[in-house]
Amino acid sequence: MSRTAIAINATLKRSGGAPSSTDRMIGLIGEALKKAGVDLTETIRLADHDIKPGVSSDEGEGDAWPAIRAKILAANILVFGTPIWMGQPSSIAKRVCERMDAFLSETDEAGRTPAYGKVVLVGIVGNEDGAHHTSAELFQALNDVGWTVAAAASSYWVGEAMNKKDFKDLPEVPKVIQQTIDMAAANAAHLATALSAANFPGQPK
Amino acid sequence: MSRTAIAINATLKRSGGAPSSTDRMIGLIGEALKKAGVDLTETIRLADHDIKPGVSSDEGEGDAWPAIRAKILAANILVFGTPIWMGQPSSIAKRVCERMDAFLSETDEAGRTPAYGKVVLVGIVGNEDGAHHTSAELFQALNDVGWTVAAAASSYWVGEAMNKKDFKDLPEVPKVIQQTIDMAAANAAHLATALSAANFPGQPK
Amino acid sequence: MSRTAIAINATLKRSGGAPSSTDRMIGLIGEALKKAGVDLTETIRLADHDIKPGVSSDEGEGDAWPAIRAKILAANILVFGTPIWMGQPSSIAKRVCERMDAFLSETDEAGRTPAYGKVVLVGIVGNEDGAHHTSAELFQALNDVGWTVAAAASSYWVGEAMNKKDFKDLPEVPKVIQQTIDMAAANAAHLATALSAANFPGQPK
Amino acid sequence: MSRTAIAINATLKRSGGAPSSTDRMIGLIGEALKKAGVDLTETIRLADHDIKPGVSSDEGEGDAWPAIRAKILAANILVFGTPIWMGQPSSIAKRVCERMDAFLSETDEAGRTPAYGKVVLVGIVGNEDGAHHTSAELFQALNDVGWTVAAAASSYWVGEAMNKKDFKDLPEVPKVIQQTIDMAAANAAHLATALSAANFPGQPK
Repeated sequence: MSRTAIAINATLKRSGGAPSSTDRMIGLIGEALKKAGVDLTETIRLADHDIKPGVSSDEGEGDAWPAIRAKILAANILVFGTPIWMGQPSSIAKRVCERMDAFLSETDEAGRTPAYGKVVLVGIVGNEDGAHHTSAELFQALNDVGWTVAAAASSYWVGEAMNKKDFKDLPEVPKVIQQTIDMAAANAAHLATALSAANFPGQPK
Repeated sequence: MSRTAIAINATLKRSGGAPSSTDRMIGLIGEALKKAGVDLTETIRLADHDIKPGVSSDEGEGDAWPAIRAKILAANILVFGTPIWMGQPSSIAKRVCERMDAFLSETDEAGRTPAYGKVVLVGIVGNEDGAHHTSAELFQALNDVGWTVAAAASSYWVGEAMNKKDFKDLPEVPKVIQQTIDMAAANAAHLATALSAANFPGQPK
Repeated sequence: MSRTAIAINATLKRSGGAPSSTDRMIGLIGEALKKAGVDLTETIRLADHDIKPGVSSDEGEGDAWPAIRAKILAANILVFGTPIWMGQPSSIAKRVCERMDAFLSETDEAGRTPAYGKVVLVGIVGNEDGAHHTSAELFQALNDVGWTVAAAASSYWVGEAMNKKDFKDLPEVPKVIQQTIDMAAANAAHLATALSAANFPGQPK
Repeated sequence: MSRTAIAINATLKRSGGAPSSTDRMIGLIGEALKKAGVDLTETIRLADHDIKPGVSSDEGEGDAWPAIRAKILAANILVFGTPIWMGQPSSIAKRVCERMDAFLSETDEAGRTPAYGKVVLVGIVGNEDGAHHTSAELFQALNDVGWTVAAAASSYWVGEAMNKKDFKDLPEVPKVIQQTIDMAAANAAHLATALSAANFPGQPK
């Protein structure tokens, strides 16, 4: 059974400028997923798209969300990449979570949201501090609307306090970071396979 | 295949006094698990036990954690019940998370912590406000050390802002709360079954 | 000495539609500030403006932030109003915090950011749950960049868990909420006066 | 006018063993306060004392909190030191916050809690990640019960992601960390002086 993953990158910067540390992290997660038998088909740079503010699945003319939403829901695994700003996920990461709030009113006859049976991985980078809290906020918001979180689902890198080092400039990926990424990807792949074979049954009668 | 659940109640109060709102929530989760085919075998009132501060699995003489730890790890599902204080999980909930930090150095040959293959449900009650954040902190801390979080794993109740109403005194459980609990339990039972049949394979070679 | 306040409303909705619960909260804070001798001069509906993503004070053509930034920094007190979505501040609230990150590189000769000597009040509303965490995130992000937080600086309202009631539809403001607002405003006014008279001296020689 | 500070250290370890990184941070804050004209009179190692769980100011026989509470409230500035565990403040830090929840019912005739007019500084250390979130939780909990937070009130150090380096073992304190500490202390001293001269007036009539 073939399973796929899609990635979103919630950096504040559009494509075309300097490379993004978040992209490097997503790239590593993609390679790890490949080793686990899952294709990461695309990385969507959210800042390139006009995702309107709101909590519905379609905020009308010019809203880029419906197309992105469809791509996300076509995959088995979502790789949610975000930079850290002020110790927190980016405003673009938050916007995407808000748009997924609509899932709560898009349940099927068994009460299951569109995210049921799907697995999320988070990939987080910052110059310093904030990865655990960023995981916490994403796990809670995404789990609320139906995503499942396999064991050890957070891959992250941050530098020493108040430093300016960028993940994209590290000459090599620290071994412990690579191991964490490999494990996260293997766990997500395993769970996505199980849930593809048998989704949650939904609301008990 | 028989799966079991165990509950911990992180209320600040020892047994023997007034009933605990957290216990009421745990009781409802237990009934919902029963409907999903899982036995909740015991609820451990943490405040009755002397769980020493620390981040190892055994903090020495008089430490109640090793016995509680063994019971938790003997079950497939952990129901983690906590009251909210100041918008946050209780200090006793935090203590238990800290003690589980030791899991990170108790991995098997495949790099799996003792929580791999196990599923967590959170049950949260407060007079007012704080349930989402409490979920966020618990999900992040517990997922870090290996617990899996099935879709919509948080069951909670809080009253209106700055009110004093207790969940234990509600004449009946609101329908939407009951549905949330039933769904959370069904999801956890489903995932625990899948992971019992096939645990995460662990660190890729 | 005359002190002024300005408010920002981080609702996801533009002006012109239904009234905003966040506006009602800001209105109450404005009245309370008036009683404390401070004029709330304007409420800026952030969703009406094109605040570009980024962490500088001017993200170039079409960026609405420089003008809003100037207005905010012309006042002694910032009333930061936000709705709660998914237990967290809105993505628009987050965007504004990110833009203030630039303050850290806009220090004067004594190392003081533009927010030194200024006081922040938060006004938070939601259908249910999330006010404490929203305060926590705003306090941390804003304090990091130089805002001072007077005692009891959070005014909020949320309804019972999983309810749909809106603050704007309450027939009257609960007495305890009104008292909290009055106290928060009095505290902020007092501190803004003290800091207007004598700002922080800045980096020790 | 003489102002004083007191420190609490929420490390999980009792005195007498290895030195505590949190103590090193508190020591640096103490020196910085000294430069700002404030005496740090004592550091209370909380783990040495039996602070009972609860949310009242006196939990009965054997409870160490009443004496610690009195010392804290005798000072103008509280230096709240905590290690980070799992990206969050320690369970002992949380316990102390819970005990301060009682302040809300210990208001004077003007509705002011015992923390009104007092200023808090946080000092946070960890091997890696979690400082911003720890600040956020402490600021929110402490501000709720009446503490004032001067500009830039968080002093912290954490190492690179998933590293084991301890702050106490750094051969020297990084310059940017020292500057942050000096500024935080100067800000707190300034505000404590202002609030000593004129406390918040309290609930408007």
